[in-house]
Amino acid sequence: MHARLLGAPSRASACTSSSSFPSAGRHPCRASWKPRPPSRSSASPPPLSLLRAGASMEPASTEGQSDPTVHGVADRVVGVLGGGQLGKMLCQAASQMGIKVAILDPLKDCPANSVCHEHVVGSFNDGDAVREFAKRCDVLTVEIEHVDAVALEKLEKQGVVCEPKASTIAIIQDKYRQKGHFSKFGIPIADFVEVDTLSSIENAGEMFGYPLMVKSKRLAYDGRGNAVAHNKEELSSVVSSLGGFEHGLYVERWTPFAKELSVIVARSRDGCTVCYPVVETIHKDNICHVVEAPAQIPEKMKKLATSVAEKAIKSLEGAGVFAVELFLTNDNQALLNEVAPRPHNSGHHTIEACYTSQYEQHLRAILGLPLGDPAMKAPAAIMYNILGEDEGDSGFVLAHQLIKRALNIPGASVHWYAKPEIRKQRKMGHITIVGPSMFDVKAHLDRLLQRDTDGPKKVRPRAAVIMGSDSDLPIMKDAAAILEKFNIPFELTIVSAHRTPERMYAYALSAKERGLEVIIAGAGGAAHLPGMVASLTTLPVIGVPIWTKSLQGTDSLLSIVQMPKGIPVATVAIGNAENAGLLAVRMLASRDTELSDRVNEYQQNLEDSVLVKARLLEELGWDKYLEQCMKP
Amino acid sequence: MHARLLGAPSRASACTSSSSFPSAGRHPCRASWKPRPPSRSSASPPPLSLLRAGASMEPASTEGQSDPTVHGVADRVVGVLGGGQLGKMLCQAASQMGIKVAILDPLKDCPANSVCHEHVVGSFNDGDAVREFAKRCDVLTVEIEHVDAVALEKLEKQGVVCEPKASTIAIIQDKYRQKGHFSKFGIPIADFVEVDTLSSIENAGEMFGYPLMVKSKRLAYDGRGNAVAHNKEELSSVVSSLGGFEHGLYVERWTPFAKELSVIVARSRDGCTVCYPVVETIHKDNICHVVEAPAQIPEKMKKLATSVAEKAIKSLEGAGVFAVELFLTNDNQALLNEVAPRPHNSGHHTIEACYTSQYEQHLRAILGLPLGDPAMKAPAAIMYNILGEDEGDSGFVLAHQLIKRALNIPGASVHWYAKPEIRKQRKMGHITIVGPSMFDVKAHLDRLLQRDTDGPKKVRPRAAVIMGSDSDLPIMKDAAAILEKFNIPFELTIVSAHRTPERMYAYALSAKERGLEVIIAGAGGAAHLPGMVASLTTLPVIGVPIWTKSLQGTDSLLSIVQMPKGIPVATVAIGNAENAGLLAVRMLASRDTELSDRVNEYQQNLEDSVLVKARLLEELGWDKYLEQCMKP
Repeated sequence: MHARLLGAPSRASACTSSSSFPSAGRHPCRASWKPRPPSRSSASPPPLSLLRAGASMEPASTEGQSDPTVHGVADRVVGVLGGGQLGKMLCQAASQMGIKVAILDPLKDCPANSVCHEHVVGSFNDGDAVREFAKRCDVLTVEIEHVDAVALEKLEKQGVVCEPKASTIAIIQDKYRQKGHFSKFGIPIADFVEVDTLSSIENAGEMFGYPLMVKSKRLAYDGRGNAVAHNKEELSSVVSSLGGFEHGLYVERWTPFAKELSVIVARSRDGCTVCYPVVETIHKDNICHVVEAPAQIPEKMKKLATSVAEKAIKSLEGAGVFAVELFLTNDNQALLNEVAPRPHNSGHHTIEACYTSQYEQHLRAILGLPLGDPAMKAPAAIMYNILGEDEGDSGFVLAHQLIKRALNIPGASVHWYAKPEIRKQRKMGHITIVGPSMFDVKAHLDRLLQRDTDGPKKVRPRAAVIMGSDSDLPIMKDAAAILEKFNIPFELTIVSAHRTPERMYAYALSAKERGLEVIIAGAGGAAHLPGMVASLTTLPVIGVPIWTKSLQGTDSLLSIVQMPKGIPVATVAIGNAENAGLLAVRMLASRDTELSDRVNEYQQNLEDSVLVKARLLEELGWDKYLEQCMKP
Repeated sequence: MHARLLGAPSRASACTSSSSFPSAGRHPCRASWKPRPPSRSSASPPPLSLLRAGASMEPASTEGQSDPTVHGVADRVVGVLGGGQLGKMLCQAASQMGIKVAILDPLKDCPANSVCHEHVVGSFNDGDAVREFAKRCDVLTVEIEHVDAVALEKLEKQGVVCEPKASTIAIIQDKYRQKGHFSKFGIPIADFVEVDTLSSIENAGEMFGYPLMVKSKRLAYDGRGNAVAHNKEELSSVVSSLGGFEHGLYVERWTPFAKELSVIVARSRDGCTVCYPVVETIHKDNICHVVEAPAQIPEKMKKLATSVAEKAIKSLEGAGVFAVELFLTNDNQALLNEVAPRPHNSGHHTIEACYTSQYEQHLRAILGLPLGDPAMKAPAAIMYNILGEDEGDSGFVLAHQLIKRALNIPGASVHWYAKPEIRKQRKMGHITIVGPSMFDVKAHLDRLLQRDTDGPKKVRPRAAVIMGSDSDLPIMKDAAAILEKFNIPFELTIVSAHRTPERMYAYALSAKERGLEVIIAGAGGAAHLPGMVASLTTLPVIGVPIWTKSLQGTDSLLSIVQMPKGIPVATVAIGNAENAGLLAVRMLASRDTELSDRVNEYQQNLEDSVLVKARLLEELGWDKYLEQCMKP
C-alpha cells in the first residue's frame, strides 16, 4: 500500500544525475539477448548507447561472443503505464522471474502498487508524467490503451523503447481508426461507417438496417461507448446518450453471432507470433463474465479464428501480447470485433491453465526474450469474473460469499485485486477453475454459482458399459467388476441397436460431450451395437461378442470384429468382458500414472498367482495336483 | 527493494496507539471463517477480542449467522519470520489472493522484500524483534525453522496465533529432539543415539557399524551439520569438524537407500490433512538438486511413504504446510529422515504443476481457510535448482546462460529470487518443467543441461506399429498412414514373437517408459505377437490379424482375439490395419480435444463421401452407375 513516489532513494538517485537516457548505460549490450537475428522489418530500436552521453568507458560487446553480466532473467526495468489488475498480474509474473517493474498510475492504492518494484504516482495520460517516468525504465509498455500516445510517439523518436509501438496504441485507442486499419489489411470485420450528422446516421441506418450499433470512437470499453438504435426514431436519443456527434461516433452493421471468441496473440520483438488456444467469452451486460478455454467449437472454426487473429496482429507494430476479440457468426465466419494491445481479461486463465501465462508472455515479448509455449497444460479451464454486485459493505459481503465457495472447489484459484472500493459491475477479482475436462470445470462452475440444485454431487462417468439385452448382463458384469476394482466411475445400461435405435443414436452422439472416455458394448448374434455406436462417436469402442447357442458366438465375433475401413471396434474374445474392462482401464491409464501403477500391480498379481500354482504342481506332482486342486 | 521499516505510516500508526494486541480489534469475528467446527483437539486460539481493551463498541458477531465484512479472501495480516525465497513465494501466492503479508528479516534486500506488504527489518532470532513484529500481524508463521521458538511460546501464551505452533518449531529445530519425538510416535526412522564424549561415540560406532552418520542437533540444513565417519579413527576429526561435542551431537545408523522421497503434507487449523503426490528428490553435495514429480516408484511405495508422512505430521501441533523427507530403502521401507514445518524446496513444482501450490496451501491452512486440492494438474514435472556455480559476475553469467536455455524450453518456468549476491552452492532460483509425461520433461531437462548430445531433437513416439515379418508391411502400412495423417509421432519396426523372442521381451517391457501410449501389432497364422506384447506391458495393444493362404486369416484372427482373461488385445478385422490406426488415434484423442476434433472431421468426411456416392447413384440409376463408377 505504500506508494513509492518520484524521488525514492535507490533508483531515482542513480537516474536523475547522469543524462537524459540514464538507464541505458547500465546495459551496454541490451540487444544481444535476441534468440534470432532481427529481421529487416524488425521493430527493435537502435542500441541506446548511441544516444547516450559519456559512454566511452563501457566495454563494447562483441556480438554473439559473450554475455554481459545479467542478473537472472533480465536486468532491464519494465515501465508500465497503468496499475490496475492487469498491471498487478504483470508484476506478479515479473516478481517470479525477478524482473523489476515500475508502474505509472494516478491512484496511490492502485492494485499493482503492492507488488511492483516502484510506483510512480501520476497520470498515464499526462505527457510530462510519462516522459519523466520513462527515464527510470528500459522498456515502456501499457496495461491500458487509453494513454497519451502522442507523448509515447515523441519518446520513441528520442530512442525510448515502447512495446507495442506508439503507432499501434494510437490506432487501437480510436476504434474507428482501428476498424479502418484492419479493413485496409483485409481482416474480416462488420461493415462500418463514420457518422457526424443526423442525416449521415440516417443514411447509415438505411444502408445497414436496424438494429444499428452506434459507437464512440474513443475511451470505449466494457460496453461503455456503445449503444443500439432499434429504429430510425431512436437515433437522435442514442446519439445524445453517447455524448453527441462532437464526441466522435461511427456505426456498425449489426452482427448476429453464435459465439464471441478471443485469441491471445503474442508477438516477439523480431516479429514472430504465437497464438493461445481460442477461448469463448460470455458477456453479461457488455462485461466479460465467463471465459471457457478451449472454446467448444469445431477445429475448423478454431483455425479460422486463429488465422484472422494472427493476421490482424501482424498488421500492427511492436512486441507484446494482444487480445483479438471475434464474433463467430451463424454462417461460420470469424469477424474481428476489436483488439487490445496488452494482456486481457480473456487471458486470465492462462496463469493456471497454460505453460506460459499471458503476463509472463508479455514480459518475454517486450524484453526480447524467446516467447514461451502458449499451450494448455490442463485440458480445460473456466474463468469467472468477480464483479461488484453492490456498493460498499454489502458488495464485499457478497463477493466474499462467492470466494468462500470457490475455496471449497477443487481446481479453483481465487484472484483478488484488492481494490480499495467496490462498485456495481466493477471487476474486483476473478476465479479460475482448471480441470481434466470441460464437463468437470462446468460442473464446478455450477457449484460455485449454486446452480447444481439437483441433489448429491454427480461424478462424471469416464467409461460406459452397454449391452443389447439384459440377457447379456451375466457376461457384461465382468467388465463392470473390473471398472469397480480400478475405481473408475462408469455408467451401465441397456441400449439395443435393433429395438431402441433412436435411443442408441442419442446415446452414442452425446457420449463424448457427457465426458465419457471409452465405451464397452456387448452384443450377440447379428451384433450391431458396438459397430453402430463406433460409427456415431469418436470415442474408442470395445466390443464384447456374446456367446450364442446356434453358432457359439462366432456370429457375434465376426459381426463385431469385421468392421469396414474407417470405423474401428476393439474386439475381445467371445464372452470375455473382463478383458474388455481391462482394455478400457489400460486406455484410461496411458496418461494417468497412478492408474497405470495399479494396472501394473494387477498384472504382477496375475503372474504371482500362476507362479504359486506352478510351485504347487511341482511339489505335489500331476496326480495329487489334479486330485486336490482341480476338483469339479 | 525498499525496506518498509518499523513505524511506516499506514499500519504502524493504526497499531501502536491502541493496545498491546491492536490488530485484534479490527476483526471481531476472526474465528467464523472456519469451514468446519473446530474439533476438541483444535489448536485454534480463543477469540482475541477477550484480550482486547475497549471493545465495547464492536458489534458482537452471532456465530454462523452472518459474515463480517471481509474484503476478498481474508483481511488478516500474515506475519512471516524470514524473508528468503520461501517467504518470497509465499508473498507471491498471497499477492494473487490479495492477502497482506508482513516479513521479519534482517536483510534489507532479502528476496521477499520486493513483494511483501510490509518488511520489518529485524532478526527472527531476536525475541524482542519478534514480539514487536507480532503486534502488526494477525497470525504468525515461519519460512525458516531456526527462529526464536521461546519467544513464540511466550507470545502464544499471550494469545498470539502462531501456525504451526511454537512447540512444533521447538521440536523440529533440534534434530535430535525431532528424532526422539517421531520415535515416540512410532514413525519408522533410522536408529540414532545422542553422543557427548569420545567413548560414547565409539560405543555408538560399535553398535551401528561404519560408515557412521554424525549430526549436529541444531542449525543444520542443506547438509551443513552432517558428517560421515568411515571408521573409528575418523571419529574425533569428524566431531571437531562439527564444532565438538559441546555443539550438541548425535549419530545415526547409516541408511543405504534406493531413493530419497518427499511428501508435502498440509494440515488445517482443525487438524485435517491433505498430502501432495510423493516426489523424488535428487541431491548433489547434500543440496537438493532435482525434484521429480510424481516419484517414479510403485503405487504401493507411494502409499507407504504418504502414510508415514501423514502420521508424522499428525503427531505435531498447528496448521500449515510441512515437508516430510524420507528414505526409500532397498528393502522397500520408508524411513522418515526429517521434517520441515513450512513450504519446502521439494514443493516448488507445485506452483506450476498442482491445482493448489504449497504456498497458497500454507496460507489457506494458517488462516483457517479450506485446504485446496493438492493433485497435479499436469502429468509430470521436474524442478531444477539454480545453484551458484561461482562467486560474483562469473556466477551470474553461468546462471544466466542456464536461464537463457530454459526460456527456450517448452513448459519451463524460471524463478529468480533476485538475491543481491551469488555464492557457490547458494540457491539463486529454480526452473520448473511441466509436461505431458515424465519422458517429455526428462528430455527437456536433458536439453536444459545440454545432455542431449546425440544430434537433432528427438520427438517422443506416442504410438508403435510393429509386425512379425516384413511380409506384413503391405497391410500394416495402412496403420502407419493413418498415424501420419493425424500427425501422431510413431515408431515402426519388426518384432517377431517366434524368431526374436528376446527382442520382443525387451521391446514390450520398455515400451511404457519410452513414452509410448499405444501399440499396434500385426501378425499372421499362429499370431502370438499381439498377445505376448500385451502380457508384457500395461499399454493398450491393438492386434491386426494378417490374411493367410490356408485359412484366409481366421487362424490369425482367433489367435489374436481369443486371449485368456487378464490380458486383453483390442482386435480389428482381418487385414484392417487402417482401423487399427484409427482405433489408436481415438484412444489418444479421448483426452486431447484438438485431436478429437480432427477425428470428428475425418468421420464427417467419411459420411460426406458416401452421401456423394448416394446422390450419384440416384442421379445415374444403377446401370449407368455400374458402368461409370465400378469399372474394374
